[in-house]
Parts: sequence; structure tokens; C-alpha cells
Amino acid sequence: MSDAAPGRIDPEEFRRLGHRMVDWIADYHRQVGELPVLSRSGPGDLLRALPEAPPEQGCGEAGWDEVLADLDALIVPGLTHWQSPQFHAYFPCNASTPGILGELLSAGLGIQGMLWATSPAATELEQRTLDWLAQLTNLPDRFRAPDGGGVIQGTASEATLVAMVAARHRVAGGRDADLVAYTSTQAHSSIVKAARIAGICDEVDGTTRNGRRTVRFVPTDDNLRLDPAALRAAIAEDIEAGRTPFFVCATVGTTSSGAVDPLPEIGAVLADTGFRDAGGWLHVDAAWAGSATVCPEHQGLLAGLEHADSYTFNPHKWLLTNFDCSAFWTSDPEHLTAALGVTPEYLRNRATDAGGVVDFRDWQIPLGRRFRALKLWFVLRHFGAEGLRAHIRHHVALGEQFENLVRQEPMFELAAARSLSLVCFRLSGPRERANAEGRALLDALNAEGQIYLSHTTLPDPVDQAPRFVLRMAIGAAATTADDISQAWDRIRALAAQIRRAGTEPTA
Amino acid sequence: MSDAAPGRIDPEEFRRLGHRMVDWIADYHRQVGELPVLSRSGPGDLLRALPEAPPEQGCGEAGWDEVLADLDALIVPGLTHWQSPQFHAYFPCNASTPGILGELLSAGLGIQGMLWATSPAATELEQRTLDWLAQLTNLPDRFRAPDGGGVIQGTASEATLVAMVAARHRVAGGRDADLVAYTSTQAHSSIVKAARIAGICDEVDGTTRNGRRTVRFVPTDDNLRLDPAALRAAIAEDIEAGRTPFFVCATVGTTSSGAVDPLPEIGAVLADTGFRDAGGWLHVDAAWAGSATVCPEHQGLLAGLEHADSYTFNPHKWLLTNFDCSAFWTSDPEHLTAALGVTPEYLRNRATDAGGVVDFRDWQIPLGRRFRALKLWFVLRHFGAEGLRAHIRHHVALGEQFENLVRQEPMFELAAARSLSLVCFRLSGPRERANAEGRALLDALNAEGQIYLSHTTLPDPVDQAPRFVLRMAIGAAATTADDISQAWDRIRALAAQIRRAGTEPTA
Repeated sequence: MSDAAPGRIDPEEFRRLGHRMVDWIADYHRQVGELPVLSRSGPGDLLRALPEAPPEQGCGEAGWDEVLADLDALIVPGLTHWQSPQFHAYFPCNASTPGILGELLSAGLGIQGMLWATSPAATELEQRTLDWLAQLTNLPDRFRAPDGGGVIQGTASEATLVAMVAARHRVAGGRDADLVAYTSTQAHSSIVKAARIAGICDEVDGTTRNGRRTVRFVPTDDNLRLDPAALRAAIAEDIEAGRTPFFVCATVGTTSSGAVDPLPEIGAVLADTGFRDAGGWLHVDAAWAGSATVCPEHQGLLAGLEHADSYTFNPHKWLLTNFDCSAFWTSDPEHLTAALGVTPEYLRNRATDAGGVVDFRDWQIPLGRRFRALKLWFVLRHFGAEGLRAHIRHHVALGEQFENLVRQEPMFELAAARSLSLVCFRLSGPRERANAEGRALLDALNAEGQIYLSHTTLPDPVDQAPRFVLRMAIGAAATTADDISQAWDRIRALAAQIRRAGTEPTA
Repeated sequence: MSDAAPGRIDPEEFRRLGHRMVDWIADYHRQVGELPVLSRSGPGDLLRALPEAPPEQGCGEAGWDEVLADLDALIVPGLTHWQSPQFHAYFPCNASTPGILGELLSAGLGIQGMLWATSPAATELEQRTLDWLAQLTNLPDRFRAPDGGGVIQGTASEATLVAMVAARHRVAGGRDADLVAYTSTQAHSSIVKAARIAGICDEVDGTTRNGRRTVRFVPTDDNLRLDPAALRAAIAEDIEAGRTPFFVCATVGTTSSGAVDPLPEIGAVLADTGFRDAGGWLHVDAAWAGSATVCPEHQGLLAGLEHADSYTFNPHKWLLTNFDCSAFWTSDPEHLTAALGVTPEYLRNRATDAGGVVDFRDWQIPLGRRFRALKLWFVLRHFGAEGLRAHIRHHVALGEQFENLVRQEPMFELAAARSLSLVCFRLSGPRERANAEGRALLDALNAEGQIYLSHTTLPDPVDQAPRFVLRMAIGAAATTADDISQAWDRIRALAAQIRRAGTEPTA
């Protein structure tokens, strides 16, 4: 039978190997907390360990002992374990049992949902689960059917890019215009990356061909939130100069400090300045913090969202849905699909021609698409709204625990107000010394590899000079209060060593 | 323990549910050939079957009987089965045992490889497996280390977009220029979609702001290959008019008919016209056909590839590596990363600052990235080069089988030369009648749902008017010679009915 189609799936072979892989993963999660969270690998270690030439003969099922042995010996040591309870470096990337099962099922089915017709259930399950998410997070009605709608993007970067392209189409169409986008100085790097890809600007500082500034980074207030007055002045100045403001990206939960831009005031500015009347588009990026709004007590984060044309948050970060799953809603699917739709003859089909169905290829950059709604469906059913809220509340409580530990220790101070489960802190004392000590502490922690934190710089409220700040981004699904206590004990011990020794740890 | 972290993975629960899901998938592949390949669902069927409100309480492990029952009852009927042996509609989307296991493992590990440091093995396994693929397909040295390099993109659409953005950066940098891109009239819709996203053009016909044509669709020869003389004339005309030709996308294996653009002649044009000297970029899109070049007898398809700056093909189409896995190589990583790189403080790390490592986030649109190299590694090890060649040769032989069946049947004729396993055919006779009969045949086939084909239009060699053409795109991993015979018998029987009845099938 296997000769009849050399690449076909033999169901029994798949069953045997699939069970082995599931067992391997179960064992991995049993032990992940004991592995060094930050890989100890050096550059080129794995490259040197792998054969330079590809295998000529296949190993087949019989060879999987060796494949799994290589996985243990070669791959695992090269991993930084995002599912470790001591991973607090970047915003989390939650895996979960239903999330993994959904990804497995998606791979096993191997369907591709570019068109409604190429698997109606892929499109409709996505529509339904995104609508469930919209209900759970209490989104404004404008993002739900029949006017608006939701879709799964790969990442928030892609969500920003498609929003920007839709905005350009709505504001400028075929017209020549000096387009200007706005975001805060604290916004994510993906905003300017999207603008560079879209040809809005060329350089990372937001300038472009012939020196016109086409992404403006609006200053923030003392709490690192976009300053609406500064936005108002920037838009007015650009309109006065004959430029065309077309896109504002506000952030709910910035990467560096979890700051929340004031959406109600931003909405008022956009209405007052003529930005809105000219078709300008407000996109709201809540990539990380958005997950928290499954809890009613955090839904205030989204106050003013009714002013937005699009909104995104990533269930793949903090809502137990395996990467990638970035939920994106827009109140203006017409301009989105007008900007992205191209229909060659070979993609035409009866269902599309008849109307009444949604082809999600026109809502995204790629043509092809995986069946990602399965994992979201499984997560929502397995945990339910209650389970997801408990997950978020658990981490916010851990954030409070860590905040209190920082507050009680004179060697440290908070570097920004705690935002949900993100705590930004620094060594106390004069800036120059504290910055050096902070860097030394991060290096010492990462050299040990048992606890993984990352850093940022935030402006000193006094003179705006950069302060080195440690980010404790709590959100790994497995993290417990004990893990936080242990992490804190180690952080404090290393900091004490560094402080005693000058800026270098003793060992 | 589960109270300590409500979202954590319980290894034993995962093991039990994982085994069930593996068993479900094994059973699915045992029966997929008996299901209607094209879903019988109507618009809204699944939406109406699913609850309007999200579940408040989670079902937990105990609820998975119901989840799996809903999977059978609600989801499966809404699928179009890309893994069915009778799926010949679009280019394939091969799933395989090692491909699914790789996707499962990637989900289970839940790591995110945006930076080398965030999992060194994810970056280095990707570098090694892409280099293996480059060897297997005999790519020019310029695409391999130390000068060039490979990376996994999500889709060929994204590969085209990043190539276009890199090209713009190389040619124009911060300079103002009227950029012009070129591709053939037979090229994939993703080329113009990429140009629209990148702001190169605004409309689907390639025009843009102030009416300048910025994507030019170059005519093809009688074999539907880009005409190098026409490309030469177009570039010369644009240079003469003060415009800046910056990007050419050639296709190896077009979607409609599998045509292969003449890369050696295109390379000569680009050298002669000054396109090359001005920094212009040649991208080669072999999304589907590239997989065939694991066979030495098909490597002639890539003759002239040494003229290209970037090249892409999709192992997720025809090389048994689950979607998504689009292999992309460039000989100029410097301009690619210069165009896409943005490094905020929170992404800085010791390894990146020290150099000597590659951060793949700067090679792609998104920031985050799944560990997709695992599935490619598993596929290469499980099948080996020999197994992959056998897989390709099996389908090319099926293409020959189908071609011969068409040739022997006077009711039909080939509409283009067979390309590998893609056979374009049509009803014979006067165009208007044959077109109507072709549409009726496709509708009749799709109404039955047992065999799934798609269509395109190709220009009539006589007067370039569109001819309706059926595409038999053979490549599902499970398809056998018997499946081809059965498909042909049904196609012929329905065509005979249609021909007897006028243009409508009798039942």
C-alpha cells in the first residue's frame, strides 16, 4: 500500500508515532521547570552538531528512536523555555492542553481556509469564536456583525500592517498625498516596521524619501501614555502644512511598561481636528493587555474603544491559545477588503460570486491560512470564561505579590506603576550607578539561566534621560506564587552581591 | 496543584487527551477518501449550529467526549478535504506523519524564535534545514552561507512582499523615485497584492496614485512564459521616461498552467538594460514547482537562477511539510535586514549585540515566529531525499497518466502543455460552446463533491480571448493511479452527459 503513494499517511504508523510524541511532550512539561530557562547554547553549537549534508535515505518509523534521542540531546539544550514557570522576560506565549490539541488537529486535518469554499467550517468557526471573544471582552458593537467583524491574524505586527493599508486606501485611495501616521514614543517597534513595509516611511526614525516625517512619535505624559495635547498639536501642524494625517495607533499596554493610552481623549482629538472627517483611521493595539479584559474589572482598559476603526489583541500571548493567534476586529471590513482583495480567475468560485460568504484571504497579507480557529474554540470550551478569568487573575495577583516585594526592599524601587502582571523595577539610588547595577544584575541572572527577565529603558521623569529598567513580565501558564518568591530571593541576593562588590557580582 | 496555576498544563491530562486526538486524526485519515472532498455545507450552516454566546464554564477533560462529538457532527461536514485522494483543485497542501508531528512538537514546546537568544536551536535548525533543502534542490551557491541564506516564511505571498521591500530599499533607499515592478500577465495575484501592501501601486491593475503604472504585467509567449523581449522593451521605456525599474518577479510554474519563465533570458535582459547596475532585484517564485527540483531530472526548471536575488518555494505545497512552510533564500541578506530591522531597547540582548548570530525577526514581516523548522527537519529525516523524490515522481507519473487519458479522448484536448503533475484541459470544439460546457462540467463535478477540480482561463492562441480551462492539479499525498482512473471516468461520463444534453447535465 505504501508503494501506491509514497508520501501518504499510514494511519497506524501515525497513531504509534503520534502517541510517542504526545508522551514526549507530556514528559517535557513535567520537567520544564527544572531546565535552565535561558538556553546555555553558544552561537553555532547546534549547527556544528548537525550533519552538513541532508539525509539521503529516510529513517522511516524505525528511525524515530534516533530522532527523539536527537531531540533530547541536540534540540532541548538549545531552547529557551517559554513555558518554564521562571520565564518572565518577554510577554508570555501561553501554550495549553487545548491550545496544543487545536494546533495538532489543524495540522492533522491539513486544510487551508483561504476561501470560504475551501473549508466553510474554517471560516465560520473563526467568525463565531471571534464573536465569542468580542463578547467576553465587551467590545463595542461596531466590531461585531453585521457591521464589523473579526479575523485571526498571525501577529499584532500583521494586524497593524493591514490596518495601516486599509487606512491608506480609505483616506487616499488613488490620490497623491503626503500621508502621516502617529503613535507614541512608547509604541511597539512593529508600528514603524509596518510603516516601512507599507512604504509610508523608509527609516526607523519615521522619516522617508525627501525627508518628510511620515511617522510621528508623539510624546507621552509622566505615566508614559500618549499625550493627547501633543497629538492634537502634531495633527494640526501637519494639516496646516498640507500633509494628510491618516492613521493613529494607540496602545493599551505598552511593551516597556504596560502604559495605557487615553482612548477617550484621543477620540476627542481625532473628532476635533478634522482627522476623523477626512477618513482617518484609529487602530488600537492591546497585544498583551487585551487578554485581561476577559475580566470585568479590567474592561476599563478599553474605555473609548468605540472611537477605533480596528482593534487587536493576542490570545497567543496571555490567553492560553498557542502562538500564533492574534485576534483582529474592524468596524470597516469594506475598506480592508477593498485594499487587500485581488481575485484572479483561478480563485473565483460559486460561493464567492454569489456573495453572502466571507473569504478571509482578503482580510490578511497572505493568501493561504491555517485552521487556527480550532485552537481558540478548544481553549474557550475547555477553560470557559471562568477558567480564563481565573488564569488572568492568578497572574495579576502574582504581579501584586512581586510589586509588594519590590516596595518592601529599599535596595529596589518601582520604575513605573505596575500594569496588570508587569512590574518594572530598578535599583534605587543615583541614576548612573543604578543603571550600571541594573545591567550587571540582568547579566548575572541570565548567566545563571534559572530565571529569565528582560529589560528596557524608560525616561527619567526629571530630565528624560534613559533609566535602565528590569521587566518582570509574569504570565507563563505554570508560574506559581512559590516561583515568584524564589525568583525574588535570587534577584535580591544577586543585587546585594553586586552592590557589595561595586557593579560586578562576586562570583 | 491545578489551583496553584489555573492555566498550567497537567502532563497526565495532556497525555490522555493527546492520545485521543492522535487517534481521532488517525481515524480521519483512514476514512478521508470516503468523505465528499468538497464540503456540502451552505453559507451559515455552522454559524447557526454553534451557540451564540461563549461558554461560561469550562468543560475540562470530562467534556471532551462532547467536544469530539461536535468535531464529528459540526466541523467535519464543513471541511473541504485537502488531504483527500480526490483533491485536485488547487496546488496541494501536503500533510504527512512527520509534518504533523513537527507541528505538534512545535505547539507542545511553545517557544518563540524571534531572536536567536529566545531559542538558539530554533534559528540554527532553520538555517541547517534550509541549507539541506538548498543542496537537495541544487540552488546556486549565492543563496547559501556565508554570502546568502535561507529562512522560513509563512507563505510565498510574504516572501514576495519582503523581497519587494528589500529591493526598494536597495534601489531607492531614502531617495524619491517612480518605482516600477514587472511580472508576467500569468503571475500569481500575490505579486500585485504585495505591491499594493508595499504602497507601490494602489489598484489591482497595477496603477497607482496619479495614474502612473507601477506594476507592469509583461505579455507572455505562446507557452504562457514571460516574453523577455517585451520585458526588455518595458524596462527601456520606463528608464527613458525617467522611472526607476526596481523589481522583477519571474515565475517557475505559474498557477494557471505551470509555465516556467525563461530565467537565463530574463537575466540577460536585466544585465543589458542597466536594471542590474542600478541595483534592481530579481525574485523567482517557484511556490509550487520548486518542490519537484529535489529530483535531478527537474532541476533544469531552475536554470538561470544564478541571476536571482531571491528565490522561494513552498515545501508546504508539494513536499510533505505541513502548511505553513515557505522556503525563502536571498543572496542579499544585508538589504533585507536593513529594510526590515528595527531594534527597540527591549529586544536588545548580549548575543545580538555581540554579532555572529542571526535574528530571523529581521527577515520577515512579523516579530514573533513559530518553531517551523522542526517539521521540515522531521520530514527530511523521515523520508530522506529518496523518499521525497519518490513522492514527486509518483505524482508526475500520475500527471502523465492523466495527460494520456485526455489525449486519447476526442471529447477533450489539452489546453496547455502538461507541467509536472498539472494538466490543463478543456472540452474540444468551438470556443464558446466548449467554454460553456467546461463551466457546466465543473459545476456538475462540484455539485457531486466526489472529485474536486478548479478552473482558470487561458488566452486562446489565435486571438487571446479567454478559454475556460479545467485544472487537474495532482499532488495530494494519498492520490493513487486508481484515483486518477476513477476521476477520469467520472469526468468523462459527466462531460458526455453535458454534451448530449446541450450545456446542462441531465441529472
